Amino acid sequence: MDKRFYFDWAATALPMTGMESLPFFGNPSSIHTEGRAARLALEEARQRCAAALGVKAEEIYFTSGGTESNAIVLFSLLCSAKRLYKTCSISKQSDSSESALLLYSEAEHASIRENAAALNQLGISCTSIGLENDGRVSQAKLEKVLRKNPAIIMAAIMAVNNETGAVNDIKALAAFIRSQQKKRPIHIHCDAVQAAGKIPMYLNDWGIDSAAISAHKIGGNKGSGVLWLKKPVNALYRGGTREKNIRPGTENLNAALDMALALERHSGAALPPLYNEAADRMKVLLSALQKIIGSTVIPADRSGEDSRFSPWILQCAFRNRAGKIIPGEVMVRALDEKGFALSTGSACSSKNTKRPVLESMGLDQETSLGGIRISQGCTTTMEEIYALVRAIAELCEIL
Amino acid sequence: MDKRFYFDWAATALPMTGMESLPFFGNPSSIHTEGRAARLALEEARQRCAAALGVKAEEIYFTSGGTESNAIVLFSLLCSAKRLYKTCSISKQSDSSESALLLYSEAEHASIRENAAALNQLGISCTSIGLENDGRVSQAKLEKVLRKNPAIIMAAIMAVNNETGAVNDIKALAAFIRSQQKKRPIHIHCDAVQAAGKIPMYLNDWGIDSAAISAHKIGGNKGSGVLWLKKPVNALYRGGTREKNIRPGTENLNAALDMALALERHSGAALPPLYNEAADRMKVLLSALQKIIGSTVIPADRSGEDSRFSPWILQCAFRNRAGKIIPGEVMVRALDEKGFALSTGSACSSKNTKRPVLESMGLDQETSLGGIRISQGCTTTMEEIYALVRAIAELCEIL
Repeated sequence: MDKRFYFDWAATALPMTGMESLPFFGNPSSIHTEGRAARLALEEARQRCAAALGVKAEEIYFTSGGTESNAIVLFSLLCSAKRLYKTCSISKQSDSSESALLLYSEAEHASIRENAAALNQLGISCTSIGLENDGRVSQAKLEKVLRKNPAIIMAAIMAVNNETGAVNDIKALAAFIRSQQKKRPIHIHCDAVQAAGKIPMYLNDWGIDSAAISAHKIGGNKGSGVLWLKKPVNALYRGGTREKNIRPGTENLNAALDMALALERHSGAALPPLYNEAADRMKVLLSALQKIIGSTVIPADRSGEDSRFSPWILQCAFRNRAGKIIPGEVMVRALDEKGFALSTGSACSSKNTKRPVLESMGLDQETSLGGIRISQGCTTTMEEIYALVRAIAELCEIL
Repeated sequence: MDKRFYFDWAATALPMTGMESLPFFGNPSSIHTEGRAARLALEEARQRCAAALGVKAEEIYFTSGGTESNAIVLFSLLCSAKRLYKTCSISKQSDSSESALLLYSEAEHASIRENAAALNQLGISCTSIGLENDGRVSQAKLEKVLRKNPAIIMAAIMAVNNETGAVNDIKALAAFIRSQQKKRPIHIHCDAVQAAGKIPMYLNDWGIDSAAISAHKIGGNKGSGVLWLKKPVNALYRGGTREKNIRPGTENLNAALDMALALERHSGAALPPLYNEAADRMKVLLSALQKIIGSTVIPADRSGEDSRFSPWILQCAFRNRAGKIIPGEVMVRALDEKGFALSTGSACSSKNTKRPVLESMGLDQETSLGGIRISQGCTTTMEEIYALVRAIAELCEIL
């Protein structure tokens, strides 16, 4: 490039690291050369994400993460429900005998569950579907909830649960929801944060309307998310025309490029070997854990090769020699001291002492509070698996 | 650190770049060693931001940028207004004769203006204050709006306008708002995106309740923002306990560290020399521009040393030899071809053809659409200023 004179610091400053280190530092919404270069790079990142996900580039919206992607879809209800209240007979005063507008599964992440509660407070009635014992959403429970709530206009069902690894058959559930649709179409949203890049995923084939994806769960940076939208929604937060009015704020090109790279490394031909190796390790992990006296896999009937579960995540609990369930927090801290990093459940809710997902699966409170989550990744080795099992076995003896 | 075994990929994956390159890759909400290390680093970044801003660490909330910081404050009205509707006599049906709950200046960024419009549609009545000819908010106009709207519970007035550089006397305006407060306290929010690190800023001394700050306007990365909150608000978007329930989503430690560095480099003893040099360059720029026949500084009475304006931003328009105002877009494109990157106004609204801020200052439409924004930064040189003026003078001859 010829010598350039940058006089658009109010749009975005030259980076502290110098202009050369970040060739695309410009604000992608600026119309000058630097802005257009950043825009081109952003649109290329969008196309790469779309290709990795098997969808159209114009259906990809960059966000700050999975949580924000979920929130954008849920809070679009505030706008559409308002139109509904105006144009049809649904009353704004919600009482328990009335139909909900949003249904969500009790497996959902806090960014669905708690936003549903916020919507409820604002007069958008919401209802939840309990889980089967395996942590999945069943057609039977779905049917009951849909029958009882004929005004449903949105359903949020996650692809892979972040605490148990339970995989929902999104395609079958979506087809069933469509078959039950009454006058209005139902927007089907899928939190795919623990699915994207981890299990085979066919957004376009699942018959859903939107999905939330996060980069940092597959090796990318935090602060990088994608919202896949088959059709635009009415986003609540505004502020300029960025991301076609779906997500305001200066476009974060680095986050978009990082997302594209993370998805590419975990999709297409790259995914099956990663998945198969994870499945092999999970099989070994499960059979080794089952040899530990007092171990409880959650759910108890999860087997080594079990298509109901993601091979990346396992929930389990342990009894000590006295037969008492070891509290999950105690086990996690003791394992940490031995060099093993794991959690009980969602890090987002690490301050909570309740385990709503496990309780919705019918687990008693003691077992729920004993649950720990073992989640592996693409560089996890069989040796690490063995070391973990040995450490757990030792702790069951002494805790 | 001894050998570590990472089994918490569902919380956050090991980075693609390897664990060593990012020592604090852990999820700051995880309770294991990696999570606690990330938490410590995050809290240190918070303390550094607080020190740079002269506020308390617990008043700093990390967000994805200025736009999100603004949105969090504005949409907290949905929760508090609902309580108000319940507990007092303010009616939910808004008609023009009724008091607004939110007032905002017509200088505000799209992330205030458009979110106010969204709130209005949801039944939270909003009203705006027009600008004086210099683009600033006056006590006189504020008094009228407050008198007419006794139920106001929030006021949003930006510190420095992003298109004109107009600096509001936030301290005086806040004191005036406090003096007019009736039964309920008024939450005073300040979009400080173009002020933080650019002009002397005393959040704690201004008498306000919250402020929005962005890293990428002062050399940091995009996707990094701070919301300063004197007291917590009821945030609308939920999803776990992150950022003390103000901003959900996995904490973005890199963004927080980047914000701390950007603020430190532009605050305390570092700011006065940066500011003074910018002021010197602005003086030269203004006097050189005024020698170009047909140049119009906006507002026309802005002088070289003018405390009403930030030295970092200038809005101006130009006439060609035939005396016709050159459309801002035409000028920006022609300058870009000559190697100069600048904008007409906000990049967020670059697709809009209207200039509401300039029109609120009383400018006619032709001059408004002729406005271009020259915004400089801390590495801008006097030579670049001269080159820009020469280029503009040449273009006025040929456009």
